[in-house]
Order: sequence, then C-alpha cells, then structure tokens
Amino acid sequence: MESPGGLEMVEPVSRGSPVRRSTVDLRIRYAETDQMGKAHHMNYLSWLECGRSELLRANGISYAELERAGVQLRVTSVGIEHRQSAGYDEEVRVWTDLGEVRSCTLTFSHEVRRAVDGGLLARGHAAVVCTDRDGRTRSIPGRIVRSLVG
Amino acid sequence: MESPGGLEMVEPVSRGSPVRRSTVDLRIRYAETDQMGKAHHMNYLSWLECGRSELLRANGISYAELERAGVQLRVTSVGIEHRQSAGYDEEVRVWTDLGEVRSCTLTFSHEVRRAVDGGLLARGHAAVVCTDRDGRTRSIPGRIVRSLVG
Amino acid sequence: MESPGGLEMVEPVSRGSPVRRSTVDLRIRYAETDQMGKAHHMNYLSWLECGRSELLRANGISYAELERAGVQLRVTSVGIEHRQSAGYDEEVRVWTDLGEVRSCTLTFSHEVRRAVDGGLLARGHAAVVCTDRDGRTRSIPGRIVRSLVG
Amino acid sequence: MESPGGLEMVEPVSRGSPVRRSTVDLRIRYAETDQMGKAHHMNYLSWLECGRSELLRANGISYAELERAGVQLRVTSVGIEHRQSAGYDEEVRVWTDLGEVRSCTLTFSHEVRRAVDGGLLARGHAAVVCTDRDGRTRSIPGRIVRSLVG
Repeated sequence: MESPGGLEMVEPVSRGSPVRRSTVDLRIRYAETDQMGKAHHMNYLSWLECGRSELLRANGISYAELERAGVQLRVTSVGIEHRQSAGYDEEVRVWTDLGEVRSCTLTFSHEVRRAVDGGLLARGHAAVVCTDRDGRTRSIPGRIVRSLVG
Repeated sequence: MESPGGLEMVEPVSRGSPVRRSTVDLRIRYAETDQMGKAHHMNYLSWLECGRSELLRANGISYAELERAGVQLRVTSVGIEHRQSAGYDEEVRVWTDLGEVRSCTLTFSHEVRRAVDGGLLARGHAAVVCTDRDGRTRSIPGRIVRSLVG
Repeated sequence: MESPGGLEMVEPVSRGSPVRRSTVDLRIRYAETDQMGKAHHMNYLSWLECGRSELLRANGISYAELERAGVQLRVTSVGIEHRQSAGYDEEVRVWTDLGEVRSCTLTFSHEVRRAVDGGLLARGHAAVVCTDRDGRTRSIPGRIVRSLVG
Repeated sequence: MESPGGLEMVEPVSRGSPVRRSTVDLRIRYAETDQMGKAHHMNYLSWLECGRSELLRANGISYAELERAGVQLRVTSVGIEHRQSAGYDEEVRVWTDLGEVRSCTLTFSHEVRRAVDGGLLARGHAAVVCTDRDGRTRSIPGRIVRSLVG
C-alpha cells in the first residue's frame, strides 16, 4: 500500500519556498444556513478543512493522493470563535496558516473573513495527526515535511 | 475479502417472515434547518437512508457488516415529493417499504410523517445497486435475498 | 414586507435575453465524502441548489434579495439519477436548465459532470413553488417572470 | 414579539431542582461518515448541539419555543478534542454539563461516548450568547435563568 512507489506519487511538485499561508474563497450555500438566517456554525469546520487542503496544495501536496498512498491526516482537535455571522450567498475567504510541523502532527490556524470587506467572521485552529489506513499513528512522510518547512 | 466466511458474518439472524415495512423515528436537529425555518430538503435523503438501514435491520441484516464483508448498496436514483414542511425539534417517523428485489438491485418507497399526528411531510423512493468495493455491479448475496423475500 | 418598494430592490439588473442554461463549478469537499470513498448522494441536492441560484443570478436575480423581499421558492419535488460517482477534491460542473415557468411554480433540470472531462455523474430535476414568508403559495413576481422568459 | 405574554409561552414547566447534566443518544448515520470510514468531525458539532437542546429540555425549556418568543442562543465558541473515532451505525451518547450561567451567556461542556461500552470518543465545550432576533445581545430571560440555577 505504502511502497516507496506509492509515495513517489505524492511527491510535491513545488520546489520553491514553502507557502505558510493560503486562502480559499467559498460562497455560502443555502443548505448551510439555519433558521437564524445565517450559516450554521457546523459548516465552518468544513470550510477550515477546505483551507487546509488548499495550504497543502499550495505546497505541491495533493491530500487526495496522500490518502491514496495510505497516509491520513486525522483531526484531533479543532476550535473556533465566532465574531460575526454571515449569510446565504455571501462570499467568504478562509485564511489558513501553517503552525507547528512535528514528526507526526501538524497544527493550523485559520481566519474566516467576508470577502467583500475583509470583516472577521471567525478565528479557528486545528491539529491533525498522521496515521496509516488503520488509524495507527505514523511519521509524516519526509517529502511532505520538507515541502512544508523548506 | 468476500469469502464465504466473510458472508457468514453477515448471515441474517432473523428466521421469521420477511419484514417489508419498517419505521424509524428521528428528531429534527437545529443544524438541519435552513433560513426558511424548516428542515432543508437535503436532509430528507439522509433520513430515507436511515429508513433503509432500519428495514434491513428488521430483517436481521446489518448493513455495516455487509459493507465490512465487501458488499455495498449504492444509491442509483432517489426522488422525493414534499407536501408539508417540518421544523426544528419536531419528531418525524420515516416509513420504508421494500419494493422490488432483483438479482443486483433493490427498490424502496418511503413516507416521512410527523410523529405527533401522522401528517404526511414527504413521499420518496430510492433504488440501490449491489457492488463490490471497487464499484463493480455484483449479485446481492443469496442469504440477503432470502432474508428479504422469504 | 412585500411592498412594491421591496420588490424594486429585487428588480433584475439584466436587460438582455433570458439565460436558460447556466453552470457553476464546485470542488468536492472532504466532508462531503462517505465511507464508500465518494461524495455522498445527499450532497448533490445542495449542488443542484447552487445551480439554481446561479441560473437566477445569470438572469439578474439575486435569490438572497428575493427572500429579503418576502418571496420564497420552496422545493416541492426533486429527483436524481446517479451514473458515476466522484470523489474528494474532484471538480464538478453543475449544469442547470430552466424548464417551465408558470404563475406560481418553476421547474429545472440539471446535470452534474466531472469538470476535467465532462463525464456525466448525475441527472436531476427539481420543482419549486413561490410562497410568502408564511409558506402560502403566491404568484411569482412579474419582474422575475419577465427576466426569465423575456 | 417579545412581550411578557410571549415569554409566558416559554415558561419552564419543571419546578424541581435544576438538571445540570443530561444525555442524548444518537446512532451514527451513513451520511455522517467520510472516506476514512468514520464519522466526520464536523458532525460532532451537530451532536453537541443536540446535547444542549436536551439539557434545556431536561430543565423544562423548549429551545424551539424560546426562539419563537424571539430569544436566540448563538454559539460564540466551540471546541472539541477527539480521542477515538466511531463509525456508521454505532450508537453514541452525548453527555452535556451546564457550566457558567451569566446574564447574557451560558457555557457547556460535553463528552461523546460510545453507547456500548462508554468509551470516550471526544470532549468538547461551547459558549452561547443570548440575542434578540436581530442578533443584538440581550439578557437571558429571568425564568430561563431560574430554571437552570434553581
């Protein structure tokens, strides 16, 4: 499953300096609103996750390929503070900053802002642990670490 | 993966007459509402799916075990007609009727009713096809068929 | 709530020919996958809804503003047939065609296709009824009808 | 909207000692799984919310009626730590403890445990602020406070 060949597949294509901050833009869907008329707080976790995918992508890492090679990044903790709410059809920008890169874990911090004026909607953070397909903790592959820290 | 041994695991425990209709009760969650103040129509598909799980369970079939044995039931079509809406904290009862049992496919019809007075909220139907883990169509295991049709 | 003044707010800005087909592109989120490793069928309903929002927008209609003016479009029926599945991080294009425009109802047909090669994932349809904030059926505002049918 | 009469409607029926801990049992839905084969972490926020609804209900408070009377409890912060994962069809029990009751805010702590053996899946916490329908902070109605703190 996780032969060196498999990991070649996920070798980052980027060779430049690591990207430690990235953004992704999303438009709030009707299905994400709740009866208060704003995006339900649960959906922010999905948006933060999109942000982490983008940060990896910005460093040449496809998380989809990483999983196909048998490497998973599982969320171990996540938290969010809400400052303002946002509603259907509003565009939001998710900022993601890479925090600590350890042998088996990564941390991220996030901001969700209104796209139109940059107003802060929420701040969040997340930690993930690297596991194999069976959920056993393992080291983050060296190439992934190098693409993230240079 | 799918050795006879694997399928023994999922041998239905029920030996009685097949159950062709079942119900499951759910309480509408806040996260399921939308800004119209009612459950968003997307969630009904999740409720119907709970209904199909229960119908299998009523016939001694654990769909979770079925998947662990390498047998999947994939939704190929689903439709729903909404008559009345229902809101946060209301209890709904999902009625599920088994329709056709063919070699590779099953069909189901559904009703979603308010628990308190039986008022009809929606009617739905779904078809599923039996596949292996790679998504290739395969026959529904004989024991499963027998537990459904007697 | 629904004074002429309110409806001025939602007067379509488009003055060109009606747009009867539109597209919107989405990237499948990790949270949208299920344990079969593909996007769960429930999420397609949310994508179709994004498609309908875009078709309205392409005709100068903001559904968000429409609701603020007290006009709702409630889904009365929806159906979908799945041909192929798609997974995390794949980009999909949702095609939306306007069907019938009647005094109180609209119908739509949809296709969901892989962005990369146009492969058909699913076909769907939906009908919506125009209501006021209390869920009572009402006519679709004349300006909205005219922007959709020219 | 929020006349004393309106609040009579939401007067707690309970006259006993406040209940500071409650539980609610849920069965993990297929739609809640992700491609790792376990419940996606986003769904835990919906489960914690169910837990808070139950804690209010255990004290004679219907959150649905509270909102109809114009009183909202908006999530301002939420966090969760995951210890073990759980999969489709597993039953989980959400424990909810009332934390601080202040004039405008409430805090809660949560545990999510496997129903079958009590194994800890996750610990969480949430804070909510009381607002009117327009999102303006307001005091928690006195009757609600008294039903929570005795």
